[in-house]
Amino acid sequence: MIIIMETGARSEQTQRVIDFLENNGFKVRYNIGEVHTVIDALGDKTTITPGRIAAFDGVKEVKLIREPFRLASRDRKNEDTVIEFENGVKIGGNNKPVVIAGPCSVEDSYDALLEVANAVKESGGQFLRGGAFKPRTSPYDFQGYEEKALKYLKNASEATGLLTVSEIMDATELPLMMDYIDVLQIGARNMQNFKLLKAVGQCNKPVILKRGLASTIREFLLAAEHIMYNGNNKVILCERGIRSFDSDFTRNVMDIASIPVIRKYSHLPIIVDPSHGTGQRYLIEPMAKAGLVVGASGVMIEVHNDPENALSDGKQSLPIPMFKDVMGRLNKFMENIENM
Amino acid sequence: MIIIMETGARSEQTQRVIDFLENNGFKVRYNIGEVHTVIDALGDKTTITPGRIAAFDGVKEVKLIREPFRLASRDRKNEDTVIEFENGVKIGGNNKPVVIAGPCSVEDSYDALLEVANAVKESGGQFLRGGAFKPRTSPYDFQGYEEKALKYLKNASEATGLLTVSEIMDATELPLMMDYIDVLQIGARNMQNFKLLKAVGQCNKPVILKRGLASTIREFLLAAEHIMYNGNNKVILCERGIRSFDSDFTRNVMDIASIPVIRKYSHLPIIVDPSHGTGQRYLIEPMAKAGLVVGASGVMIEVHNDPENALSDGKQSLPIPMFKDVMGRLNKFMENIENM
Amino acid sequence: MIIIMETGARSEQTQRVIDFLENNGFKVRYNIGEVHTVIDALGDKTTITPGRIAAFDGVKEVKLIREPFRLASRDRKNEDTVIEFENGVKIGGNNKPVVIAGPCSVEDSYDALLEVANAVKESGGQFLRGGAFKPRTSPYDFQGYEEKALKYLKNASEATGLLTVSEIMDATELPLMMDYIDVLQIGARNMQNFKLLKAVGQCNKPVILKRGLASTIREFLLAAEHIMYNGNNKVILCERGIRSFDSDFTRNVMDIASIPVIRKYSHLPIIVDPSHGTGQRYLIEPMAKAGLVVGASGVMIEVHNDPENALSDGKQSLPIPMFKDVMGRLNKFMENIENM
Amino acid sequence: MIIIMETGARSEQTQRVIDFLENNGFKVRYNIGEVHTVIDALGDKTTITPGRIAAFDGVKEVKLIREPFRLASRDRKNEDTVIEFENGVKIGGNNKPVVIAGPCSVEDSYDALLEVANAVKESGGQFLRGGAFKPRTSPYDFQGYEEKALKYLKNASEATGLLTVSEIMDATELPLMMDYIDVLQIGARNMQNFKLLKAVGQCNKPVILKRGLASTIREFLLAAEHIMYNGNNKVILCERGIRSFDSDFTRNVMDIASIPVIRKYSHLPIIVDPSHGTGQRYLIEPMAKAGLVVGASGVMIEVHNDPENALSDGKQSLPIPMFKDVMGRLNKFMENIENM
Repeated sequence: MIIIMETGARSEQTQRVIDFLENNGFKVRYNIGEVHTVIDALGDKTTITPGRIAAFDGVKEVKLIREPFRLASRDRKNEDTVIEFENGVKIGGNNKPVVIAGPCSVEDSYDALLEVANAVKESGGQFLRGGAFKPRTSPYDFQGYEEKALKYLKNASEATGLLTVSEIMDATELPLMMDYIDVLQIGARNMQNFKLLKAVGQCNKPVILKRGLASTIREFLLAAEHIMYNGNNKVILCERGIRSFDSDFTRNVMDIASIPVIRKYSHLPIIVDPSHGTGQRYLIEPMAKAGLVVGASGVMIEVHNDPENALSDGKQSLPIPMFKDVMGRLNKFMENIENM
Repeated sequence: MIIIMETGARSEQTQRVIDFLENNGFKVRYNIGEVHTVIDALGDKTTITPGRIAAFDGVKEVKLIREPFRLASRDRKNEDTVIEFENGVKIGGNNKPVVIAGPCSVEDSYDALLEVANAVKESGGQFLRGGAFKPRTSPYDFQGYEEKALKYLKNASEATGLLTVSEIMDATELPLMMDYIDVLQIGARNMQNFKLLKAVGQCNKPVILKRGLASTIREFLLAAEHIMYNGNNKVILCERGIRSFDSDFTRNVMDIASIPVIRKYSHLPIIVDPSHGTGQRYLIEPMAKAGLVVGASGVMIEVHNDPENALSDGKQSLPIPMFKDVMGRLNKFMENIENM
Repeated sequence: MIIIMETGARSEQTQRVIDFLENNGFKVRYNIGEVHTVIDALGDKTTITPGRIAAFDGVKEVKLIREPFRLASRDRKNEDTVIEFENGVKIGGNNKPVVIAGPCSVEDSYDALLEVANAVKESGGQFLRGGAFKPRTSPYDFQGYEEKALKYLKNASEATGLLTVSEIMDATELPLMMDYIDVLQIGARNMQNFKLLKAVGQCNKPVILKRGLASTIREFLLAAEHIMYNGNNKVILCERGIRSFDSDFTRNVMDIASIPVIRKYSHLPIIVDPSHGTGQRYLIEPMAKAGLVVGASGVMIEVHNDPENALSDGKQSLPIPMFKDVMGRLNKFMENIENM
Repeated sequence: MIIIMETGARSEQTQRVIDFLENNGFKVRYNIGEVHTVIDALGDKTTITPGRIAAFDGVKEVKLIREPFRLASRDRKNEDTVIEFENGVKIGGNNKPVVIAGPCSVEDSYDALLEVANAVKESGGQFLRGGAFKPRTSPYDFQGYEEKALKYLKNASEATGLLTVSEIMDATELPLMMDYIDVLQIGARNMQNFKLLKAVGQCNKPVILKRGLASTIREFLLAAEHIMYNGNNKVILCERGIRSFDSDFTRNVMDIASIPVIRKYSHLPIIVDPSHGTGQRYLIEPMAKAGLVVGASGVMIEVHNDPENALSDGKQSLPIPMFKDVMGRLNKFMENIENM
């Protein structure tokens, strides 16, 4: 940790910082510069956060040297985390990228869901996704079919052999989810819902953690750290676009570079969601490829049997025939990607 | 609702949109322009959201005419909402702004809390705030003393006559909070935790709803709408800074203009939190004044008996003597503000 | 154009808007809704901008239907613009993507520049880039070698057959640039330097226009429109990252999706600059591929013979051996890309 | 300067950084941590920027200790800069805040300008502003009346005794501006037009420098540094809103807290422009007060004799009667502000 004192900080202010650091086990050195005094605190105490030191009078800024995420860091574990399912599907490392597809929300017709599931299966996908509990900006929007939706997912899974993914919005839904679902998803709006992170951290299901709309890469990895800290190492990160000043043509801005950044600093797999990332049907294929070419371990795509009548997110869902076409090209792309 | 079709949208695509709108009870008119066909859908159906129409093939963009928040809107209720407590304290409308102050977290010493509470009371504040359940970016940070903290708050309240404010992070904490706390706070990270919004919407406690870090004003009012939709009209909005590209000198950027904007479009009271808004002790007083001068109904300030040893957010907490000085000036300012 | 009046706008306010529109040749219709009156103005007058109408009392919002860029739009010209050079090199359309490479700044040694130029040529690049006039955030930074640098570039061009690209910062530099340089570059900070856009619009050199750090896609295309409006159609857009809330791991966030968006709405070619886009050497190759896979017509890469001693932007420059390796893979990638 | 090496950086990489620093006159110390090696470079060389060191292989991050702006910094000059005009008007320090008002653009009628100028004078303003050269996002917008506008301004100045402010867009306009104008304004889009900063730095006119839409406070002060570095110390900063993710209700987000931040770190005066900052007539008065209450040395307001027919920015211009009302209240506010 490096502490930069304000111009004109008094020596007793500096001394109080030094005393506190030493009392907490840090080895301390400092330089009195022409303008600023700079304190180096050597040691590695996760409990003495920069914010603690910043509170001292006369401190201008505190700079952490070591990344605050530990369990998620390559410093701690250099090999890629690979998450393996009972049916042999693997996510992460050098495994072929996976495809997670399905409707935004599971709707009222099981047949419709099954039709989508069959298309996913036939196209080479491994996971069926679908929302049962829906986070919605407006209370007037459709909120999801809850347990009925989970049952439909489980039935479609049994019929096709696909694994299932669905979003959990609250810890109280966990027992229900454990019965029906193979991978828990935490949505962007809940990335810093720490109670939820703790709850999924205490179970043993794989978790897809979506990046928050305004979350830095560091905060994203710290959210994963919450899950891992509570005991669950099966975390799959998901880049799904961040908020920017321009939402005229795309709903969010996909931070494609975050994928190789995260692969450099963390061992966790990261997948890409071009449906939510762009909000536009025509951008799903190119942005899926962009994510895969920089190292994503999978892609999540919204598909709907009838997007014009979807209860949510139809704009960013592929109709089934278009999904099959896209998958044909994506499969070829994923095969060739290593040779490029 | 206005629907703009893509250049080159086919007439059968336009027709499908029109049919859908008419089948859902809208009155429809359209203009075939040189480049774009534009459809006007008259009617006011909260259940047919723009996203539903955007999903149709050939639609470029959908523009909502009427604001999607209804219960929170001045269109529906023109008079300012005023929230009144049993002891006669009022928030909103033309009432004198309130002061909510206290430590970021309630810590281990009741005496320390009482010392702060006494300072708040003596300085003319009406509410004692303090965190019992703490949302923390890193799992290694202090997470709050939970029920013990709530008890301390209640005791300090009884000793001083101050009302209490504390953050709720999860619906399961609600029964506990109902026993101890006068005003529930929903933090910025939970502004779109819809399960939590629903839960507090179903109780009758006043709620301080903080603006999310990357939430638009419209999304902020829609989050309030979730609470009101579930039956609780006692919503107090709180501007506490948004995320921007510059965090070198302040933690967030306070969107001071959002206060008069919200007062124009909504009847709900809005207060200002310069501690979280800036993250800097020296900016609390000026930014409190900035919020008050544009119409905030109150100010929330972090105070600590010993900020250098605070377990959270010491950097943005005022020590007690400085708090008293600031309050002396703020009280004078609040008295004069109407005459300016 | 759609005009939404405020709730409670008076009928004489609405009438003044209507009169103004009709007097300016628009055909006008309006709907008096329950809450808002909405005016449709049919007609296509570039001179009556939304801002003109927004100024009327009682107007809440004005929505333009047709995109404000015209010459740059596919509505006006559907075929891709292809820019062809005398030596047969082509940018845009279905042509093989081009490679523009070279040092950030041309430095003191011609031999160093020639070494880089030879590497670019041998690796299959078509353009040598290098800064002569340098925009620098701090006045204490290196400002460029000006005409000497331009001469070096021209000499290296003659020695290798590469075309040259260099940034113009001011219209007064234009005569000098015309003598030495094949493609003018306008930097991100000057994207809305309208005097400069006008000046390059009045010459016949191809122009690479970089997207401003906080420019929307629409503003980006309007900046191109300024150049085209003044007579020069040879505009090459360049995505080089936008400013976001997170600059801890990358300098900017590359908006990769803007490439297929722009290809949908404009006929102009767009290239990608992963060096400035990320500021990190290790991200150049993956982000170049990400740009190419979504349709970029070229890639711009910084290369330096000795990055550790570069006078500017060494962090994001590839050393020559690494550049050759990357180019080996990129060439193979560009060949395969159409088959994927 | 603090240099943090990557995890796993090799000792010869660290040594190369150390050698470079020592060769450039820095005193160097370093700590080999468990995970990162950290190098402290003591010394104050403006020419060795962080970017130079970041280019070395194995460097993760470089942290500057001393602020890179020097002439603009309070470290260098502690007393507030006060800019005094021949007629006795002063900007900065503890002087009463000034008012700069006038139309966005000077239009075709001198009488209209004079009417505005008289209103500004009568209301207690000191400066008449008006655009002669207009930066416009679209080439189809009104571009300004150039010299005719400057003449009108000068005439109105002679008639009223007001000083004049007008925007310079290009160094070639400088001779003309020197004849007609008392204060040069540099617009937000040109904040990093370094040729223009240099040109105005070499003249002796006071300069109002507007903050760029996506400029950090540090970049803003470095832009001022460019002007000062070239010899002109009469720089007046102007906060006019930054770009954020929300532009539904206000054009920009005013960073009101930047005013006290800048007053803490710089001796330069800063004024506030609520017209451009919000783009909304009804927000001008409250946001002017917000700026003044936190320490702005002046306020810039757009006024128009007929906003509904203004050629630019009518939406954010006050009509004359409303301007007079607002000024009545602002004058009273400015008188009382020190007592609050």
